[in-house]
Order: sequence, then structure tokens, then C-alpha cells
Amino acid sequence: VADARVRDIVARQAFMQTLGVTVVRVEDGEVELQLVSRPDLLQHAGYMHAGVLATLVDTACGAAAATRMADDRDVLSVEFKLNLLAPATGDSLTAIGRVVRAGRTLTVCSGDVWSVSGPNRTLVAVMQATMMAVTPPGRGTGIN
Amino acid sequence: VADARVRDIVARQAFMQTLGVTVVRVEDGEVELQLVSRPDLLQHAGYMHAGVLATLVDTACGAAAATRMADDRDVLSVEFKLNLLAPATGDSLTAIGRVVRAGRTLTVCSGDVWSVSGPNRTLVAVMQATMMAVTPPGRGTGIN
Amino acid sequence: VADARVRDIVARQAFMQTLGVTVVRVEDGEVELQLVSRPDLLQHAGYMHAGVLATLVDTACGAAAATRMADDRDVLSVEFKLNLLAPATGDSLTAIGRVVRAGRTLTVCSGDVWSVSGPNRTLVAVMQATMMAVTPPGRGTGIN
Amino acid sequence: VADARVRDIVARQAFMQTLGVTVVRVEDGEVELQLVSRPDLLQHAGYMHAGVLATLVDTACGAAAATRMADDRDVLSVEFKLNLLAPATGDSLTAIGRVVRAGRTLTVCSGDVWSVSGPNRTLVAVMQATMMAVTPPGRGTGIN
Repeated sequence: VADARVRDIVARQAFMQTLGVTVVRVEDGEVELQLVSRPDLLQHAGYMHAGVLATLVDTACGAAAATRMADDRDVLSVEFKLNLLAPATGDSLTAIGRVVRAGRTLTVCSGDVWSVSGPNRTLVAVMQATMMAVTPPGRGTGIN
Repeated sequence: VADARVRDIVARQAFMQTLGVTVVRVEDGEVELQLVSRPDLLQHAGYMHAGVLATLVDTACGAAAATRMADDRDVLSVEFKLNLLAPATGDSLTAIGRVVRAGRTLTVCSGDVWSVSGPNRTLVAVMQATMMAVTPPGRGTGIN
Repeated sequence: VADARVRDIVARQAFMQTLGVTVVRVEDGEVELQLVSRPDLLQHAGYMHAGVLATLVDTACGAAAATRMADDRDVLSVEFKLNLLAPATGDSLTAIGRVVRAGRTLTVCSGDVWSVSGPNRTLVAVMQATMMAVTPPGRGTGIN
Repeated sequence: VADARVRDIVARQAFMQTLGVTVVRVEDGEVELQLVSRPDLLQHAGYMHAGVLATLVDTACGAAAATRMADDRDVLSVEFKLNLLAPATGDSLTAIGRVVRAGRTLTVCSGDVWSVSGPNRTLVAVMQATMMAVTPPGRGTGIN
């Protein structure tokens, strides 16, 4: 169920399709996403753009939080903090989001982003984020 | 000079072209960027994706920091923190990055993201970020 | 009313007394607090400890958020992010917390910390924080 | 050596003595600190103040970073982000700081804070922080 829900969350987000994000693994409180490097996702020095990393791991954290929320609730990012550790120069990115503590309204997550080149991987960013369970459609309500 | 430099930073980043980012205004320590909403930039509830907001304002902050750096230095994001305030439902996004304090190596910036619909605008996100001056190409050196 | 409420929040916190925090100014959505430097608040290089700065400005942000909350609600810090800009070497610290956006449950604030020496003041830290309205006593419920 | 250095860092900070912080454990890239609850460290609801938690875990992170720095370098907090997960109602606090990535100038750390009551412990806060190696005394130079 969690697996179908997470795949649905990713599939329904147009921007995930734009970036080519795929769901690798879904467990209770943990989700792994992947994205293959493309020239149109780079910054000026030839690394994957920090915004691509942020998007991928924010989505992984939100999806991880969703695995702990009631089925009729939607997940929204309240805030996130990303530290960039090394340039993302690899062939693909892997992001893992994990629930640190799930509350009734707010869920705190942590996330890692790895740059992968063949058999090698490098930790390129870490995130600490807060997600919120909202009642869909939730349109126009913001972070109330 | 700062103006040409910022336009060059944005023009050389493929991901900025992918998102359709344009430079609106460049001043000493302050840069304004814009991006028109498109269906392929949305999340599942029909808002602009948080990752799009993060990318735009991170770039605005980096560009603002660059206006205070020596010409032979390149700018890299060390970390950023984004708080999401309201859904980005407008026709376009405007992000303003400002230098809070410029140091020799590290520059702290703050940024605002506005969702714009015709004559109305709503503050949808705020960022606090640290940028670093590096010696290009800086490839492979990460945040050393 | 806001003024009395904020003074009460500070007065009821033992740790505020331990640090010698005083309320300077209370406005709708903005609170200024002060603290006089003392040898027992320093770190090893002789600056005011980063934890003292964090405590002061977190409290200023929480108090600012409280000015926008219903009287029967209590304020709790959900998360905060502090950037340290310069050593706090002055005779006292002034922190100003401001509401950026007040929601029904969550309120986002920003804060500044100034180190003051006679007529001079230096911006030494900036904070971006999320506060939550809870129903007192709220004991044992955490950030639900 | 790392052990002596960390004990020295804590011992030389007056504010650590004020809070009653003790060094529990020092390993390469990881430091554990402790603090016994006292009435003068509480906030209005009777929990340990968020500023106390922030101070303890920021110091644990800085000390962990110091274990990876050259002996003639001093450690300074660049920025930190704290998420509060549950009220700190226990008899003592334990904070563990860990190096996530050590660079030449900047070191990224993560930290956990536990509230301890007899045999039980609860995770009450998590931190993501950036530390900087500076040349002592470093007075007046801030974050360069």
C-alpha cells in the first residue's frame, strides 16, 4: 500500500517527470528515489544543479513521511535545510528520505543524496526537513 | 559589471534555461530573478513544486553573493534553508536574493519568493543561505 | 495586552532569568529582547556563546509569534536555523524577532541578533524559525 | 589526544560550566556530552529550554569537528539548524555530535539530543550544522 501510494505521489507530480525521477524502494518510513544525469540539469561548472538535488531529496523526505500518514491525508513540505558536501559529478543521483519522528500533524525527516558513477558513490548532500499532513485538496490553505 | 556577471552566471547554467529563469534586476548585493509558471513545473496539487522555488531563490542568493566577490572567484552554495509559506499558484515566480553579510570566504544571504498573479503577489517562501567563494574551476574540491 | 503577554512569557521562563533577559519592546508581530554580557556566558575565545545568541533570538521569535496567537494558545518552537556572522564581543546583545507569516497552526519568523558596544552595534547572527500554537499545558505532546 | 582536546574545548568555555556540561565520550569524528536538568534551565512549561538543547548539541558538533581538525586550528560554528521533536522532560540531556563530512575549511555535522529519565531515553531534537576551522585567536574575524 505504501509502495503504491509513494509511486502515485511521484507519478502525479509533473516536475518529477520533467526531471526523470524514478522510485527505487519504498519501506515503512523510508523512500529511495533516483534520477539520471542529463545536460539540461547541470549548473555552470558542469555539476548537477543544487536545486535538482534539493528537489529529489525533498520529494524523498515527503514520500517517506507519507508512508506514516493516514490514507486520506496529503503531504506538504513545511521547510527543509540542505547542506551541500561535494559536487554531483556522477551519472546519476540517489536520494534516501527517512522519518526521524512522525507526529499527528508534523513529521521530521532526514535525507541523503548520493552521486553515483558506476560502482562508486559519493555523499553529496544531506537534508533535515519538516513535512505536514494536510487534508486534500488543501488548495489555498498554505501551511496553516 | 555586476549585471553582466550575474547574467553570465544564469546564462551558463543549463538548468536555468530548463526552468526558463530570467534576470530582472541586478544591484550591489541584491538580485531579482523571474520564472513563468508551466505545467511541467507543478507538483500533484497543481502548485509550483517546492524544488522549483528552492532552485530559483538559491540562484538569486548565489548571484547576489557574486556581486560582492572578486571577479576571478566562482560562487558555490554551501547550504540553504527554505520555509514554505503558501502555495505558489500564480502565473509566475519572482525571487529576490540579498547579501546579509559578505565575508572573504563565506557570504550569508536571505531570499524571498513571491507568487505573482496579474497585479497581486503573495510571499510564498523565504530562504536563509550560505554561499562560498571558490577558485574556478574548483572541480572535485567540494566545500573544502 | 500583547506587551503583558510577552513579558509574562519571558518572566515565567527560568532560563530567561538565568541569562538575565529583559523585554525591550513589544509590537504586533515584533519583539525586542536584551541581555547584558557576563563572564559566565562566554565561549573559549571570549565571545558570547552561540547558544546564548540562539536562546535569545529563538525566544524573541517565539514571543513575536505569540503576539499573533489567540490568548488561550501557547507557543512552542518547531525548528530554527541560525547563521553566525561575526563574534559577539560587545557589552550586550539585542535580538529582534519578527513574524514573516502567521498561520492558524504554524508561524514563520525571522530574527536578528546585534552585539552592542556603547553607540556601536554589529549584526552577529540571523535566524529563520517556525513556531507552533499549542493548547496548554501541551505537556508530553511534543510537536504533534 | 582528541579526547584531551575536546575536554579542553569544553573546560575553557565558561558557558559550558554555567550549564554543567560534562564530556561523556570522545571518538574520531563523534563526541557525546551530558547535562543534568536543573530548575534554572527550564522554560515556562517546565521542559528544558530549547536554547539549552541547542547549546549542548552545537557544542557536541563543534567538538566532533575539532577531532578532525589540525591541532593548531580552532573551531567556530558557521550555522546550525535544530528541529525540536518532543519536550525535554527528563532528568538529564545527552547530545551526540557526528562529522558527516570534514573538509579543509568547512565540516558538516549532524547531532542528536536525548532526554534521559532513568533507563528510558527519548530523542528530543536533531541538528544539522556547519563548523569552520579558523586560525586562533581569530578574534574579530568572524566567519571570514
